[in-house]
Amino acid sequence: MKSEETKNIGLRGITIADTRISMVDGERGRLFYRGYPIQQLAEQATFEEVILLLLYGHAPTLADIRRVENNLREYRQLPEEIYGMLKIFRPSAAPMDVMQAVAAALAQFDPDLQTDNREAVGRSCLRLIARFASAAAAWQRIRNGLEPIRDLDDSSHAAAFLHGMWGRVPTAEETRLMDLLLVLHADHTFNASTFAVREVASTRANLYASVSAGVGALSGDLHGGANAKVMQMLLEIGDLDRVESWISQRIDAGQRIMGLGHAVYQTEDPRAGILRKVADKVLQRPEDRRWFELGLAVEQQGKAILLEKKKLVLYPNVDFFSSPVLYGQGFPIDMFPVFFAVSRVSGWCAHFLEEHFAEAQPKPQLYRPEASYTGRLCAQQIDDGCNWPDLDSRGLDSAG
Amino acid sequence: MKSEETKNIGLRGITIADTRISMVDGERGRLFYRGYPIQQLAEQATFEEVILLLLYGHAPTLADIRRVENNLREYRQLPEEIYGMLKIFRPSAAPMDVMQAVAAALAQFDPDLQTDNREAVGRSCLRLIARFASAAAAWQRIRNGLEPIRDLDDSSHAAAFLHGMWGRVPTAEETRLMDLLLVLHADHTFNASTFAVREVASTRANLYASVSAGVGALSGDLHGGANAKVMQMLLEIGDLDRVESWISQRIDAGQRIMGLGHAVYQTEDPRAGILRKVADKVLQRPEDRRWFELGLAVEQQGKAILLEKKKLVLYPNVDFFSSPVLYGQGFPIDMFPVFFAVSRVSGWCAHFLEEHFAEAQPKPQLYRPEASYTGRLCAQQIDDGCNWPDLDSRGLDSAG
Repeated sequence: MKSEETKNIGLRGITIADTRISMVDGERGRLFYRGYPIQQLAEQATFEEVILLLLYGHAPTLADIRRVENNLREYRQLPEEIYGMLKIFRPSAAPMDVMQAVAAALAQFDPDLQTDNREAVGRSCLRLIARFASAAAAWQRIRNGLEPIRDLDDSSHAAAFLHGMWGRVPTAEETRLMDLLLVLHADHTFNASTFAVREVASTRANLYASVSAGVGALSGDLHGGANAKVMQMLLEIGDLDRVESWISQRIDAGQRIMGLGHAVYQTEDPRAGILRKVADKVLQRPEDRRWFELGLAVEQQGKAILLEKKKLVLYPNVDFFSSPVLYGQGFPIDMFPVFFAVSRVSGWCAHFLEEHFAEAQPKPQLYRPEASYTGRLCAQQIDDGCNWPDLDSRGLDSAG
Repeated sequence: MKSEETKNIGLRGITIADTRISMVDGERGRLFYRGYPIQQLAEQATFEEVILLLLYGHAPTLADIRRVENNLREYRQLPEEIYGMLKIFRPSAAPMDVMQAVAAALAQFDPDLQTDNREAVGRSCLRLIARFASAAAAWQRIRNGLEPIRDLDDSSHAAAFLHGMWGRVPTAEETRLMDLLLVLHADHTFNASTFAVREVASTRANLYASVSAGVGALSGDLHGGANAKVMQMLLEIGDLDRVESWISQRIDAGQRIMGLGHAVYQTEDPRAGILRKVADKVLQRPEDRRWFELGLAVEQQGKAILLEKKKLVLYPNVDFFSSPVLYGQGFPIDMFPVFFAVSRVSGWCAHFLEEHFAEAQPKPQLYRPEASYTGRLCAQQIDDGCNWPDLDSRGLDSAG
């Protein structure tokens, strides 16, 4: 039985709420945080400024920036229990599973958790943004048998994250690059993980419970896991000579080319354009450059083959060139989605605030969609139902 | 700016997928699991049978039931690391936050996690259902400074859960009651937590990541947290004499009466009817009976006052009479939603399977809704965007 009502698969094109946080113009390939084009923010704003912009809606003053830098520096120190918890995880545990658990576990350490005061929940947001990054960095060390770095007094969030992971103060260049990557991944309207955060928040669950759900959604291969999949693809192709045959085979088998195409953009994702330039600039060592060049070849030949064979016009998305950049920076592939979460937690927090405090009109309600039942019907009238069979009548063999 | 497009608030009435798992007939107040009326299952089926029914779609044979009983008994033993993790949580941590973290942390111990084989993922479901209950029981002991019960060789899931919590083998009567409560809470179509599970699963995230998100959604006061809120309300009212004035004040203040009303049912929730009878039967000791009688009074006077003052016809939902029953069984109030999750994890697993293996048509896609941007616009054309201001121009004072 196929329901005629069911037409909203994946909720594509269904507008479910108003928002004031970010806007994607999929037709023209533009992205705005609070009205500001992503290109301007990429060039001129730090991640700290973007955090404040997303959470509070306006360009922060110098005093605001100093305050948030101080807050993040203070909040960044993890409760000792979190290190204890991380040490219990097996080194083989998937980093996104670990971070989903840690996000939920961090709730217990937040003194502002039970309030419904926006200023207090804003502090919780900064606390979560700061601690999530510290925990991610600590996990990368702990799973490798290294002690976490406990005193991260770096002045920027980007520097502290890298310092916590590598155990050394990053160069100004490394910090600038990480800061830019964080800015580019911070928000993207109602993507699957942000929607999960808002959905959980709509039940009046707390900030940490909501963001933890976002981490779970981002872990999927069709979402935040895609940047890792792009790098696996590049490694698997391995050589410029193999690009065409690899892509053709893949497309003939009806599979997707990771990093090409997006649910919303009908043209190039503006973040991909920025990241292509960044990759070109920073991937200069021959061992890094080859992945950039391979990426370019996959982009060009992938587009051409998809157009020829499938009449599809697909463009690279944010994951396409972030992958070789992260790889070039020494990120383990399974930490690519964690990096994504370290940035996106800022957007998730902004969406939590918007949902929780009903900052966009009309007032949000608990998300409770309908499903169309197409299962077993035992009677003419559904409300007669089926008769639950006696145990005796069901036989002794397994039904499989 | 109010968008004219936005009309799907909370997704109410929006059919987003087909399902074969359960059906709610909101108009006539009926609930079916896989076509079987909840009343029949409540009277005749064990929770083990309901688990199999939800996961596999048909009434299990005796052999199936024996097998799942054995599986659950085996899987129920928690990896030692989980006890270690639970001991690190502060005793003051909210049980639902703890369980959300534990659900994600359990992923690392599942040998079937990386497969895409339905039989293997079915085993993962049983493992998660079994371990989730053991961990919930262990947390109740650990936070009270007691050692968890490690060898739960009880023959039923309900008995093992109670045994693990109370540290004694429950009576046949206690087990039967818990079994019935588990049956009644197992599934309810696309409620907010189940939708969160499916949403996370749609990104190809794993079973544990998906179910952990469901725990987060269920923790909210408007969802699984509601049974705790009902009991808090009864305790706050405290006396039959105070019912009318308490309800009137509450309604005059524009607040809701917890446990009355449901997003889907326009008549009595069939589970509420069953639970009213159960409560009447099991709450016999005077110290328990008073909460049942207070509940009845709140139901009757609440309905009357809501009709008179708000012209609203509201009926009790599943949380209304489950609360005094759980209270009478000695459950701490903050464990009410955990009990709910211990049951609902079975339905979440069934929905994960349906989403992951595309068992209902049409094939699900990543949930990626749209939002309508109603925020800042700095130019006539949105794609001109705002100009990110120079730091100098932003002043030195905090903008608050």
